[in-house]
Amino acid sequence: MIANLPETELPRIVIIGAGFAGLKLARKLVRSQYQVVLIDKENYHAFQPLLYQVATAGLEPSSIAFPLRKLFQREKKIHIRIDEVLEVNATDKFITLKNIGRVNYDILVLAYGADTNFFGNENVKLNAIPMKSIPEALTLRNRILGDYEIALSITDYQSRQEYMDIVIVGGGPTGVEIAGALADMRKYILPKDYYELNKDEVDIYLIDSGNKLLSAFSEQSSENAEKALKAMGIKVLQNTIVKDYDGVQVFLSNNEIIRTRKLIWAAGVIAGKLDGMPDNIYGPRRRIIVDEFNAVKGMEGVYAIGDCAVMITEDSPNGDPQVAQVAMQQAVNLAKNLKAIRKNSILTPFKYKDLGIMATIGRKKAVAEIYGVKYSGFFAWLTWLFIHLISILGTKNKLVVFINWAIAYFTRDQSLRLILKAKSLKNSAN
Amino acid sequence: MIANLPETELPRIVIIGAGFAGLKLARKLVRSQYQVVLIDKENYHAFQPLLYQVATAGLEPSSIAFPLRKLFQREKKIHIRIDEVLEVNATDKFITLKNIGRVNYDILVLAYGADTNFFGNENVKLNAIPMKSIPEALTLRNRILGDYEIALSITDYQSRQEYMDIVIVGGGPTGVEIAGALADMRKYILPKDYYELNKDEVDIYLIDSGNKLLSAFSEQSSENAEKALKAMGIKVLQNTIVKDYDGVQVFLSNNEIIRTRKLIWAAGVIAGKLDGMPDNIYGPRRRIIVDEFNAVKGMEGVYAIGDCAVMITEDSPNGDPQVAQVAMQQAVNLAKNLKAIRKNSILTPFKYKDLGIMATIGRKKAVAEIYGVKYSGFFAWLTWLFIHLISILGTKNKLVVFINWAIAYFTRDQSLRLILKAKSLKNSAN
Repeated sequence: MIANLPETELPRIVIIGAGFAGLKLARKLVRSQYQVVLIDKENYHAFQPLLYQVATAGLEPSSIAFPLRKLFQREKKIHIRIDEVLEVNATDKFITLKNIGRVNYDILVLAYGADTNFFGNENVKLNAIPMKSIPEALTLRNRILGDYEIALSITDYQSRQEYMDIVIVGGGPTGVEIAGALADMRKYILPKDYYELNKDEVDIYLIDSGNKLLSAFSEQSSENAEKALKAMGIKVLQNTIVKDYDGVQVFLSNNEIIRTRKLIWAAGVIAGKLDGMPDNIYGPRRRIIVDEFNAVKGMEGVYAIGDCAVMITEDSPNGDPQVAQVAMQQAVNLAKNLKAIRKNSILTPFKYKDLGIMATIGRKKAVAEIYGVKYSGFFAWLTWLFIHLISILGTKNKLVVFINWAIAYFTRDQSLRLILKAKSLKNSAN
Repeated sequence: MIANLPETELPRIVIIGAGFAGLKLARKLVRSQYQVVLIDKENYHAFQPLLYQVATAGLEPSSIAFPLRKLFQREKKIHIRIDEVLEVNATDKFITLKNIGRVNYDILVLAYGADTNFFGNENVKLNAIPMKSIPEALTLRNRILGDYEIALSITDYQSRQEYMDIVIVGGGPTGVEIAGALADMRKYILPKDYYELNKDEVDIYLIDSGNKLLSAFSEQSSENAEKALKAMGIKVLQNTIVKDYDGVQVFLSNNEIIRTRKLIWAAGVIAGKLDGMPDNIYGPRRRIIVDEFNAVKGMEGVYAIGDCAVMITEDSPNGDPQVAQVAMQQAVNLAKNLKAIRKNSILTPFKYKDLGIMATIGRKKAVAEIYGVKYSGFFAWLTWLFIHLISILGTKNKLVVFINWAIAYFTRDQSLRLILKAKSLKNSAN
């Protein structure tokens, strides 16, 4: 089978991945002198920073997901294909997709992001719940709500704990934000929806291997976050490593065991691997080593941007952080350079401009470090709300998210706590 | 295992099913002299009349579903249990649930509704898509959108048709409404999102075994609906029966074969069956025969309301229709009678008040017969919008549905076309 793409005189750019990097690049190349093929496994772009709110029933998936085709309606030089990449053939310049088959390229841009890093622990991979995609966030939501339903009918205290307690691994923004949201859920939702359960029986653990939460933040912000989480009743275990998890027992490096049916794994990421790519292109955590133009070293016409790439320079010997800002700035710079190539003009090396970092810690609390200014509390939380609201794609999504947040703020309650079981997709070609 | 329910002096009413009938009954019994246990397989009430809009990506599941616990927050005499009923023991007055185990009752109310009727055809059951639940509506949505994605890369006309054409079986309101919505999708969405496909290649068939669409409506409304559907390009086949479907070929009673990967089955309903109930209680299409107080004949303290019940009287020898209005009116009457029983006062027999019927046929078109007044077109469509909007539970749901409809009306477009794949729920108790 061969991809059904129109013939054109224009060189073809194939972009793998429609995350912050790939999507931004495609949008910047609209009406350029290229034919663009954008490939993703899903037919939508997910706004990952708010995944944790989907998981805790604060937002619906549709509020943080935007259909790719809607963004490129009637753009006849942009071709979207929902498929999985099986292989790259850099010699003959084509990739092979699972359903569609062969797609030739002149320029290939790898923007496939990074996956959850289980550090080789197969038990954890099998039993823990990661938080990198909308289906994973929905799984967590269904499990949280479903387990409360089960706990209602368990009379034995010990067994009931397994369904009520939650362990979160990883003290980065994802771990901190989800811990805060779960603490809010315990405080505001549980006594109303599950008045038959005793909310004090719900223990929420946040386990981190280091001695500083939010390690990318300043000492001050990190301490503020830790203090706030502890005040909300989160049990913060630092310098602690999860050695194993069998689905019920979490084995810690201090030889303690916590019993829980829900282990949320937000301990780190590792990039994927594409068959056919040379082995020597990967740096630490499998990020692809790129030069200052995001070109993959030693390969012609192949670029990598976003979380799957690492640009090692004198200023940042470990590369820039794997965050949305870096991904989008690299995409903008690469789009400019790709257009410059068509005009034979000079290329611009990439330089990351750090605009700041933020993390929210539950209702009315956040830490922010913007343009070097550090602040926390209610005003940081308002900043966080504002920045995230304007960053979400689509006017309707902005409006619906705003309505949800406003209702949540005033009522301390929501009405999205649906356990939506899915049916298998019979009879489809996949 | 035994259900963990508080001891009480009050008699216990167990309600099976939280559809229009069961939910209304529970709400009317709030703060009555009963302990109420409401049991459903899902943790939400689904507003079924708008399922077809979820299937055609016009609304999100959360807009037409409302979490049950949210409705009964802090109501300490109402107990919600999300579980499946395995068996009824009418002799010792208890039911057995799959996870929770035994629940004793003083009064049992069966309100479990009706399922899709495949008329015993196992192939159709295996391969067709029913439209009775939110997961089923999401399956249809994923299939419609996913099949367009696949069709993009199929060069062979014949094979591509299988993915683009859709067959709907059943000329009742569900079939008519989904046919209209699909015609709108073909006209307004396809040319924008899937400009690489030729919308004229999409054939939509509506197959009905009778010679009158919307058979519950007047001749005039029925003709108006048929005319409108045909004007929208729907291929209406009447007096035609689907004999078989193997997942690709639809075998018709006129010996013709239509090739399609999507057969939507809205041809009728049949009620379920509960183990332990006597065999002689069922009437046509397995509806439970009840007297004028909705009591199941020959059983003490057992009632049936809504789609699973049939009350045969001189006025309506086939019983009242299986619609939301009947279900809710029966629930209201039964609640009144159950309260009267506690006070030893006189019981009121049920009498259905038909307020009218309506069906929408795509953008700006509908047929309505309200208080005997028949009208169709734009004004009927506005009536339809209004009635459905006020009937949806929850202010936020009303608001979000209104925003979605307003955007759809003005832009003829939506942004909900997500193919949301679900992950299996590992590690759960079920």
